[in-house]
Amino acid sequence: MDPQAALFQFALRMGDSCLVLGHRVSEWCGHAPVIEEDIALANTALDLIGQTQMWLGLAGEVEGAGRSADDLAFLRDAWDFRNLLLTEMPNGDFGQTIMRQFLFDAWHVAALKALADSADDRVAAIAAKAGKEAAYHLERSSDTVIALGDGTDESHARMQAALDYLWPYAGEAFIGDDGDTMLAGAGIAPDPASLRPAFDATLAQVTEAATLQLPGNPFAHRGGRNGTMHTEYLGHILTQMQWLQRAYPGASW
Amino acid sequence: MDPQAALFQFALRMGDSCLVLGHRVSEWCGHAPVIEEDIALANTALDLIGQTQMWLGLAGEVEGAGRSADDLAFLRDAWDFRNLLLTEMPNGDFGQTIMRQFLFDAWHVAALKALADSADDRVAAIAAKAGKEAAYHLERSSDTVIALGDGTDESHARMQAALDYLWPYAGEAFIGDDGDTMLAGAGIAPDPASLRPAFDATLAQVTEAATLQLPGNPFAHRGGRNGTMHTEYLGHILTQMQWLQRAYPGASW
Repeated sequence: MDPQAALFQFALRMGDSCLVLGHRVSEWCGHAPVIEEDIALANTALDLIGQTQMWLGLAGEVEGAGRSADDLAFLRDAWDFRNLLLTEMPNGDFGQTIMRQFLFDAWHVAALKALADSADDRVAAIAAKAGKEAAYHLERSSDTVIALGDGTDESHARMQAALDYLWPYAGEAFIGDDGDTMLAGAGIAPDPASLRPAFDATLAQVTEAATLQLPGNPFAHRGGRNGTMHTEYLGHILTQMQWLQRAYPGASW
Repeated sequence: MDPQAALFQFALRMGDSCLVLGHRVSEWCGHAPVIEEDIALANTALDLIGQTQMWLGLAGEVEGAGRSADDLAFLRDAWDFRNLLLTEMPNGDFGQTIMRQFLFDAWHVAALKALADSADDRVAAIAAKAGKEAAYHLERSSDTVIALGDGTDESHARMQAALDYLWPYAGEAFIGDDGDTMLAGAGIAPDPASLRPAFDATLAQVTEAATLQLPGNPFAHRGGRNGTMHTEYLGHILTQMQWLQRAYPGASW
């Protein structure tokens, strides 16, 4: 794999995770339990879509085939997506959405912190901008995980169920491949596994305060980040997300 | 409105109702409460899609613009659909799906019976073939409405709730327009209102046996059959139903 291909892959991975999670979170718009949460979720979704535009814009630039961020978002099919499986998991109840967000944020903040020192200026610039947003997302999702985990019997039970359900999808972010090794060697992006201690520390701290039990099973589903297997949910997300560009090719604002 | 335009409209209406309901029913595939019902629902969906092919095939022929049944099914947007609003209502629980089917079947059987005597041979032929399937659908849905309505307290309550929810969408089928008047005058299709007594008789008989209370409110939502207003559900149905032809234009078996 040449360095350009590895960087293209990396930018796709970052962009696709932001895009798919941003879409998922946007599904809450108008449906959240209280208006403050509704607006907070919509803002989170907007941040993630904004980050998508930067990462997929970089991917298109690196690829050099003339594909824009919009082309990459709206004109690829499921098997060409490189998002973490965690991001395509269903919203479930509000607790599951918040737990998914927390697990993502805990990885995302650690990743962006490392990427802000990237040897590639474009990567460093995106990470510096996105990092501020992600830090705020993590603050919010942590607080909410704690409030609901250490809340009523029902909210506690729901948060524990969400953690148990999502846990097997949390480990994929830390499994690297040859491209990651190459980028790490060039100082462009961190080795995914190197982000695990920071992630584990955040999880230990927050789950303890939330009185939640961290699952012990280290098994991690994989296939999203490397594109070998997505869940059935991704196809359904794409039918909705890509509808307009598919039905009206070339439509623009 | 010229007679050809009225017939095109009529064939679209029949085809679109079968298509949208067929798609809705197909959503149960693999999800029904028992395997016998799962297969029965899948067969009902297949019958309806088969009827769609005939009606939309006729519509394309009458239109004379070279559009095939597939083109009409997969390349129109929501505002060009002419299905009854009833057919796009959500599946809800199994009882709601069965109630929707029953309300549709009760109209459908009456309509196809009249259409089998159409002065247009093509219409009569489709109606004769579809009528046999619809009669069987009505037998099944009636029996199930009765079994569940006159079943446990819970099944009774669910069937009554389904009837109350769907009732305002049952009346649209009987509201005609100028095109219907023209087709009725030419002996091609019945005046929609003329089908109401047979529908009412079926409903009275089945709801009584099912110990269900027929809602008294005659209010009927309209807009599907004449295309002025669809529910938000139709757009979501189309994103899924049309995905493949939209993403891979011209794809064929």
